[in-house]
Amino acid sequence: MASWLRQVARTPQQDSFELLSRPGMLSLALGLPAAELFPGDALARAAGSLSSVAALQYRAPEESLKPHVIELMSARGVRCSASQIFFTVGAQQGMSLLLRLLLDPGQEVMAEEISYTGFAGALAPHDCRLLTVPTNVETGIDVDAVEALLRGGARPRVLYVMADGHNPLGVSLPLEKRRRLAALAREYAFYILEDDAYGQLCFGANSPAIRSFEDRWVLYIGSFSKILAPSLRLGWVVVPEELAAELANVKEGSDLDVASFSQHVASAALGTGFLGKHIAALKEEYRQRRDAMERALAAHFPSSASWSHPEGGFFTWVDLPRHLNATQLLRRSADEERVAFMPGGAFSMRPGAGDSCMRLSFSYCAPAVIEDGVARLGRLLRSV
Amino acid sequence: MASWLRQVARTPQQDSFELLSRPGMLSLALGLPAAELFPGDALARAAGSLSSVAALQYRAPEESLKPHVIELMSARGVRCSASQIFFTVGAQQGMSLLLRLLLDPGQEVMAEEISYTGFAGALAPHDCRLLTVPTNVETGIDVDAVEALLRGGARPRVLYVMADGHNPLGVSLPLEKRRRLAALAREYAFYILEDDAYGQLCFGANSPAIRSFEDRWVLYIGSFSKILAPSLRLGWVVVPEELAAELANVKEGSDLDVASFSQHVASAALGTGFLGKHIAALKEEYRQRRDAMERALAAHFPSSASWSHPEGGFFTWVDLPRHLNATQLLRRSADEERVAFMPGGAFSMRPGAGDSCMRLSFSYCAPAVIEDGVARLGRLLRSV
Repeated sequence: MASWLRQVARTPQQDSFELLSRPGMLSLALGLPAAELFPGDALARAAGSLSSVAALQYRAPEESLKPHVIELMSARGVRCSASQIFFTVGAQQGMSLLLRLLLDPGQEVMAEEISYTGFAGALAPHDCRLLTVPTNVETGIDVDAVEALLRGGARPRVLYVMADGHNPLGVSLPLEKRRRLAALAREYAFYILEDDAYGQLCFGANSPAIRSFEDRWVLYIGSFSKILAPSLRLGWVVVPEELAAELANVKEGSDLDVASFSQHVASAALGTGFLGKHIAALKEEYRQRRDAMERALAAHFPSSASWSHPEGGFFTWVDLPRHLNATQLLRRSADEERVAFMPGGAFSMRPGAGDSCMRLSFSYCAPAVIEDGVARLGRLLRSV
Repeated sequence: MASWLRQVARTPQQDSFELLSRPGMLSLALGLPAAELFPGDALARAAGSLSSVAALQYRAPEESLKPHVIELMSARGVRCSASQIFFTVGAQQGMSLLLRLLLDPGQEVMAEEISYTGFAGALAPHDCRLLTVPTNVETGIDVDAVEALLRGGARPRVLYVMADGHNPLGVSLPLEKRRRLAALAREYAFYILEDDAYGQLCFGANSPAIRSFEDRWVLYIGSFSKILAPSLRLGWVVVPEELAAELANVKEGSDLDVASFSQHVASAALGTGFLGKHIAALKEEYRQRRDAMERALAAHFPSSASWSHPEGGFFTWVDLPRHLNATQLLRRSADEERVAFMPGGAFSMRPGAGDSCMRLSFSYCAPAVIEDGVARLGRLLRSV
């Protein structure tokens, strides 16, 4: 095996798939979209209409899908042209291709000390120096710390950040921090990888994406996984036009930059104009589940715990007293209460960060199930 | 941009897409499957039935597809178990993931001096030393040369080879060479990446795949692109079980190792049992097109040209007199005869190899069109 792989453990996701397959497990662990809300009929109807050669043959990526992306970006305050949009196999491939495009060995990469595990996975093959900055559930990434590192001489090639529906923290960045990050990227000439997989699912007033403040240095990563269906494996990035052309080279070597059946399915489905209403329904349902989560936490968790108040996305982050280790708790929780969650340490980019925290997903379970799961977790917490 | 990218030119495929979009161009350039033969109805019917949560949600790769792969492998003389099969986004991702899994910077990689461009693309991000060996249209890779390099001290980590329907040479390896390559891999402990994208499309008696002779060191790469449809972006590798587990880590960071809509479509379609008959029909049609290509070459090309006699795959390789440069010819051919082909130099892994050669695809055009295109190319060749 290549040497970088010898340092990679199984991902928490992989382990959780196993834990979840235990019969009777109530899971607040995985970031799955609500199954009841998949637009299954719209997608199946679209897919069932695709017997033409154009939908099956090798050909260039599907241009007809781009106007829909332009509309989605507009809802994020971002103006872009078709030539700045590049389709990927989900947001994960967006990250992975952008890192391959940008990184040389030995360069610095900056990220929050608690961040999405998929970014760590995409970064793993690269021999880079990781710089972490503090973050918290109230206001997200510590921009003062970013600035201090830069003023102190740090020269990251890339800063990875989620401005809305942060996974796992559930935080949305204040507008002012978005502006400052954009300005710092411009001043210090580094790329911000803005992972906006949950950006279409903000419950209140949307703040504009970071890219809306800076279109050269902020590279935007979007996904259809949460607004259509994950199995489509379809995402996009919005980048300067010249980078889009280079991404075609990177993707060509990785898995060929050609139109996928999923691109045709999405294009045919979105052509019916159902997406706006669908996203509104998703927001409403996820907002209700977020509310159910917060009610349950207030009712059942000990007062020594505190948690985030997500304005978007799928996740609530719970801080437990420092002496508790959430990975050990998970084992007891799975055995004694048959409830699964994601231990905070799984998202740690700095050893120790998040060890006494848990990520609870409110996206996948109906409100009554969330209530039940949180009550059982609360019982366990009161007993330890 | 990362430094490896600064050395990567646009691929010949990308350029050809443009050339082919010129109105009225007759193309023998691209390796496209015959459009008339896509099982469009079977795939659309299968896709149209997929509205269930299971087909849309994040979940582990589709196990129900594996028995079909086991059957396809059995037709290649390879016995394998479900745990040795790993699904990829086409054969290209198979190559790309395996190289990421296996290669460390500075290691040696061996390939034929004329080989598939996609392999060069997958290799480009890796800082490796490429060793090339001669090859020819009669018997393929020069195994004596491979052995001489090994005895001389070469220690490649990987040898890339196509045993059947070689792209671009159209050659199939003699049985004895397959055995010898397998034995050398065992003796010298290197991995053979056996790209078998065309292995299901052999016109005569099938020779077994190289992996049938050695299941530790030969890693098999298969694809549904040529037997179902390219837009599914669905392929597989067959590797030792412990490598399959590691591949899951590599794919996780690249684009998440979860079931894709395409996996569900393929599984639903293959469940109807149509694939055996479909492959038989493909073989028969491609055999007829191969015959049409050879008849046309014999009738229209000058006696100074010679060509391969493919027993499988999509391509005929034509050797022209050494003083001709096929890239220059292509420009004249496109302008004067409105016929496109792929210049041999596009497949060169060693500067100069294949410069006076052309790859003609017989897969995509009906026999009468092939005849017309070759006649026009022959007219041009006689004039130069």
